[in-house]
Amino acid sequence: MKAARLYEYDPAMNVELAIEEVAAPTIAAPDEVIVKVGAAGLCRTDLHIIEGVWKDIMDTEGNLLPYVMGHENAGWVEDVGSNVTSVKPGDAVICHPFNACGICLSCRYGHDMYCDHGKFPGLGLDGGFAEYFKTNERSIIKLNTGITPLEVAPMADAGITAYRAAKKAAKLLNPGGYVLLLGIGGLGHIALQVLKHTCGARVIAVDREPAAQALARDLGADIVLDGGPNLIEEVKDLTGGGAHVAIDFVGEHGTENLCWRLLRQGGELIMVGYGGEVRVPTLELVANEIKIGGSLVGDFVELVELMEMNADGKVRMHQTEYKLANINQAITDFKDRKFTGRGVIVP
Amino acid sequence: MKAARLYEYDPAMNVELAIEEVAAPTIAAPDEVIVKVGAAGLCRTDLHIIEGVWKDIMDTEGNLLPYVMGHENAGWVEDVGSNVTSVKPGDAVICHPFNACGICLSCRYGHDMYCDHGKFPGLGLDGGFAEYFKTNERSIIKLNTGITPLEVAPMADAGITAYRAAKKAAKLLNPGGYVLLLGIGGLGHIALQVLKHTCGARVIAVDREPAAQALARDLGADIVLDGGPNLIEEVKDLTGGGAHVAIDFVGEHGTENLCWRLLRQGGELIMVGYGGEVRVPTLELVANEIKIGGSLVGDFVELVELMEMNADGKVRMHQTEYKLANINQAITDFKDRKFTGRGVIVP
Amino acid sequence: MKAARLYEYDPAMNVELAIEEVAAPTIAAPDEVIVKVGAAGLCRTDLHIIEGVWKDIMDTEGNLLPYVMGHENAGWVEDVGSNVTSVKPGDAVICHPFNACGICLSCRYGHDMYCDHGKFPGLGLDGGFAEYFKTNERSIIKLNTGITPLEVAPMADAGITAYRAAKKAAKLLNPGGYVLLLGIGGLGHIALQVLKHTCGARVIAVDREPAAQALARDLGADIVLDGGPNLIEEVKDLTGGGAHVAIDFVGEHGTENLCWRLLRQGGELIMVGYGGEVRVPTLELVANEIKIGGSLVGDFVELVELMEMNADGKVRMHQTEYKLANINQAITDFKDRKFTGRGVIVP
Amino acid sequence: MKAARLYEYDPAMNVELAIEEVAAPTIAAPDEVIVKVGAAGLCRTDLHIIEGVWKDIMDTEGNLLPYVMGHENAGWVEDVGSNVTSVKPGDAVICHPFNACGICLSCRYGHDMYCDHGKFPGLGLDGGFAEYFKTNERSIIKLNTGITPLEVAPMADAGITAYRAAKKAAKLLNPGGYVLLLGIGGLGHIALQVLKHTCGARVIAVDREPAAQALARDLGADIVLDGGPNLIEEVKDLTGGGAHVAIDFVGEHGTENLCWRLLRQGGELIMVGYGGEVRVPTLELVANEIKIGGSLVGDFVELVELMEMNADGKVRMHQTEYKLANINQAITDFKDRKFTGRGVIVP
Ligand SMILES: [Zn+2]
Ligand SMILES: [Zn+2]
Ligand SMILES: [Zn+2]
Ligand SMILES: [Zn+2]
Ligand SMILES: [Zn+2]
Ligand SMILES: [Zn+2]
Ligand SMILES: [Zn+2]
Ligand SMILES: [Zn+2]
Ligand SMILES: [Zn+2]
Ligand SMILES: [Zn+2]
Repeated sequence: MKAARLYEYDPAMNVELAIEEVAAPTIAAPDEVIVKVGAAGLCRTDLHIIEGVWKDIMDTEGNLLPYVMGHENAGWVEDVGSNVTSVKPGDAVICHPFNACGICLSCRYGHDMYCDHGKFPGLGLDGGFAEYFKTNERSIIKLNTGITPLEVAPMADAGITAYRAAKKAAKLLNPGGYVLLLGIGGLGHIALQVLKHTCGARVIAVDREPAAQALARDLGADIVLDGGPNLIEEVKDLTGGGAHVAIDFVGEHGTENLCWRLLRQGGELIMVGYGGEVRVPTLELVANEIKIGGSLVGDFVELVELMEMNADGKVRMHQTEYKLANINQAITDFKDRKFTGRGVIVP
Repeated sequence: MKAARLYEYDPAMNVELAIEEVAAPTIAAPDEVIVKVGAAGLCRTDLHIIEGVWKDIMDTEGNLLPYVMGHENAGWVEDVGSNVTSVKPGDAVICHPFNACGICLSCRYGHDMYCDHGKFPGLGLDGGFAEYFKTNERSIIKLNTGITPLEVAPMADAGITAYRAAKKAAKLLNPGGYVLLLGIGGLGHIALQVLKHTCGARVIAVDREPAAQALARDLGADIVLDGGPNLIEEVKDLTGGGAHVAIDFVGEHGTENLCWRLLRQGGELIMVGYGGEVRVPTLELVANEIKIGGSLVGDFVELVELMEMNADGKVRMHQTEYKLANINQAITDFKDRKFTGRGVIVP
Repeated sequence: MKAARLYEYDPAMNVELAIEEVAAPTIAAPDEVIVKVGAAGLCRTDLHIIEGVWKDIMDTEGNLLPYVMGHENAGWVEDVGSNVTSVKPGDAVICHPFNACGICLSCRYGHDMYCDHGKFPGLGLDGGFAEYFKTNERSIIKLNTGITPLEVAPMADAGITAYRAAKKAAKLLNPGGYVLLLGIGGLGHIALQVLKHTCGARVIAVDREPAAQALARDLGADIVLDGGPNLIEEVKDLTGGGAHVAIDFVGEHGTENLCWRLLRQGGELIMVGYGGEVRVPTLELVANEIKIGGSLVGDFVELVELMEMNADGKVRMHQTEYKLANINQAITDFKDRKFTGRGVIVP
Repeated sequence: MKAARLYEYDPAMNVELAIEEVAAPTIAAPDEVIVKVGAAGLCRTDLHIIEGVWKDIMDTEGNLLPYVMGHENAGWVEDVGSNVTSVKPGDAVICHPFNACGICLSCRYGHDMYCDHGKFPGLGLDGGFAEYFKTNERSIIKLNTGITPLEVAPMADAGITAYRAAKKAAKLLNPGGYVLLLGIGGLGHIALQVLKHTCGARVIAVDREPAAQALARDLGADIVLDGGPNLIEEVKDLTGGGAHVAIDFVGEHGTENLCWRLLRQGGELIMVGYGGEVRVPTLELVANEIKIGGSLVGDFVELVELMEMNADGKVRMHQTEYKLANINQAITDFKDRKFTGRGVIVP
């Protein structure tokens, strides 16, 4: 099969993936599933992998390369292991990115991402920038009738990360309240749509890019701000004291110490982006009784819920498509912010 | 001032209210507020009062009549007691129907309707089918800019009763789930709008009346059913096993034993209407792990939240207006189901 | 191996189980586990099975008998299938009674008992009244150091059913509140201990048997009542208006319509026992805003939590032991209420 | 009456309070209550007031001094305003420290401490280091039969601050989980007792002082640590990966960056003490999905709940008593850590 493989890490990102012919994966264990890739989302994590940021975590012995990236995958079941009963070849599916074991206590509590024995195809083993890739039965969700893999692939990671944060936020909000989203990109625009349907609160969308601001308005943001130097004061004025909840999809370059300052008493900041360091006086935490918490990739059932919202027409992925042969162009465009929403690779 | 007063109870409902001149209420305690009535919703409870159903509860000594009904009131502040600081004459307001004390433990837990010392203007003391009526500061909510008392009066009771049930339901629902509403009348059509904005689940609206079905469709119901004899089977088929939550706005004439049968395992029935008797085998409760619970009038903060949704254009009251002089006609039309949504009396 | 087998259903319960030599179970699938039985709890469900109550559910084709009952099992791992990694032969374990699939959506939400494809060893297939029985890896919990199978076997079903109800109750209770337990038998005495450690509320224990009352006092019940004809009034007086939560472990013979009457406004009844029919006016549900819900066997993680409480010395099973050869005597004694707490069969 | 008054702020704390005769407070508004002080807790906040830390907040115009500190008060009702109905002279009471208005939206949501119009006797106006002090009806809780003001006064602030944090923690914990308390002083020893009764989790108590460690053991701590340099590793080992919840009662001198490091994935830190600055990489927040949140003084209903636990013998205040005439000695002993638990001033 055709696949795009990484041959070396390069902090300067001057390497290109090699588009080449490799052996297709085959079933080796009873719970495995081979998926014919319909589409695979291109993620900021892929850029970090190329840069070598993940090397010490996913390639500890230094023998991973060359390998196939791609962890936001959807397609059609091609082959299944002997124990697999819930899907069959030909089924259109989306794949939760993490192969959780289902046995450990974290799995039993439903915390898939805390699994003691999980694997992450696309990080540390071959993923979906190829014609086929291998995952397991517990990661597979059948698509609703009429939904194609191409429409939804980045839901598999970008989508559920945004969904999980939005779901946490919705639980904290009441009608009349305000939730602020910092960064209306591949994740933020999904969170915005989820929040518009799952809580009666008002959504404040903040992004420096006019294209992202326009997208936020299209998707129903109640207030759109450009994140200028007066953001904190603006938000406090508009909300009568501060936002009830904020979600920071950036988490670096100074934004990480912006959002906790624009919360009202009792407010909560959900951090999704990362890179920076939060510095907050304990007096601020206590006197304003604010909370700051990180949010990870969503669990399997969260992907199920997001796919239902998508099937109902409530949440759609805005994306730009590239042929697998053009993946290096897609990566360049992503770095240069040539497209809004998400880039998607089609084999 | 002009007021409509009830002079005798009549189970046959052949009595008419007398439209007559009475003394306007005046401030007698530091927390009291006189409201110039802008509009007052006509409620099924008013019919029950005329029939004498409430006599033993609100008129135990038999000396209440003649008195002024009307407990769903909105208008403008006319006068305030010496301790009142949060509103002033001229403010447009809506009035929570129950004057809770604010001191007892139920009040401190926010359970306004469980107050040990509450009063209910319109039930047991004069209400809002008049030019003025008296309430207290703790019951008053200022209207958002641009909202008129006439647009929202029935929110004060019909609205928040529906809102409270819908809010309970929303907490139990996830995207992909199903909530069934039985009865799309004055309460049900509000619950429908609230649910469409506060959870990602699908709404099944059930009503025998074609006009109510049409209203449900207009308001975005995902599925509309006529509640025929196969309702339970229909719902189980459509939902793949039963509804996750049902709200019964009827609660009598047999509906009270319909909704728990159409729940899926782990489902919950919220009962708002009343009159009938639920009969459910304990084996059904346990084996299907279903729950059946009643829901009362909403608390003060729930009216605040509903008014915010209304100000945001998310929830609107569908209503028919009658002059105070024509209140007897309104009552007759209500009994004969001549209008959909809610009837409203305008002084 | 030695096993006790049922050869015919008998509503009069005059049949005896046959103690006989049968083939021991063997591994036939990669996720299976053979357990050498250390002890197996005797359950009211076993009596119902003998009576034929479960025949239409678990023996639809009428070809189950003879078979081995026993669904509350603990022991030592004897053999494991090829995929099993979390336990190994020799490990002391307790077995969740239900073999849930781990794949269906109910399983993914953690609702083990709602699994679309589950099996229940001891009901419909051979169980633990034998020297060995077969279950699957997902049902197995390793015992904490120093805990023996004999001490805990009935935790596997009686224990977690009580635990689940108590956990639901604890979430509804605050210090100063009251929770009433109706029936201090094999389940009730576990719920009592759980509640004493997991909420600050007061526990009212109700049982007609003096021995059960004494046990309740030993275990720290704040108030012990005999359930006489004035129970509702007694409870309302003692609690200043009614219990906040009640758990009915009987659910028949009239108790099923007792507990909802002794709740305060906003109170909740959790039904665990079954047999009777709840009859409650919708007006009572609504005006008092009470809730009535069934509770099933606990999930896997609830058994994990209960075993932790047991390991910490917070919850202990009160039981009487019988040799497997004397299982018919145990059944007779159970019917005649010759012991308090739980009966346990030891191979 | 006799009162202790502060005449000047002094960062070096070399000033003494003047014990002198002043006019007793009198009723000036219908909701006021005069309390004959039975006891008043001495708080770290009182030291900070003397140091001048609160000057800019509570004495903005610089005309407060001389004034009476003391915000942790219990005693007997001496006189009441004309609207007060829930208590009468002679009633033994404890006083929530904050006079919330009961009208603003924060109050209606039950967030007493977020009130837009609150007053805090003892901070900014005269408090309870005197024979009498003035508060309002909404702050008053009648003591349970047999409870004396002297036994409970510091519950009014130290107690409920600890209770609120412990209640938040209990909601996050399951049996088998671990909660770590950093600092077993006036607040920590209350939190420990609350947690032992309201969740089935294990309590790890950390304090450098042997006397505090001994108190923790007496009160049932499952594990007691001295907070040495290996604390993080010790905790990770003992808990198999980290604490599920930690409460930091210190919040300065470096502890503020200790507790988030000893949490397990999904864990939460509740910050009660203050003074330092939290510095946490966003990557830590996200990858471990941990949360850090401040916790304020408890609400009125939380004081009610704590008093119920106290009446039930579940939570007791460990304290050392001083006569009002010796309040300067008490302050000195507090600074020098001459007593464990709480110091209490008795008029
Ligand atoms: Zn990704
Ligand atoms: Zn796992
Ligand atoms: Zn009404
Ligand atoms: Zn009240
Ligand atoms: Zn059982
Ligand atoms: Zn399953
Ligand atoms: Zn039975
Ligand atoms: Zn204090
Ligand atoms: Zn307030
Ligand atoms: Zn300090």
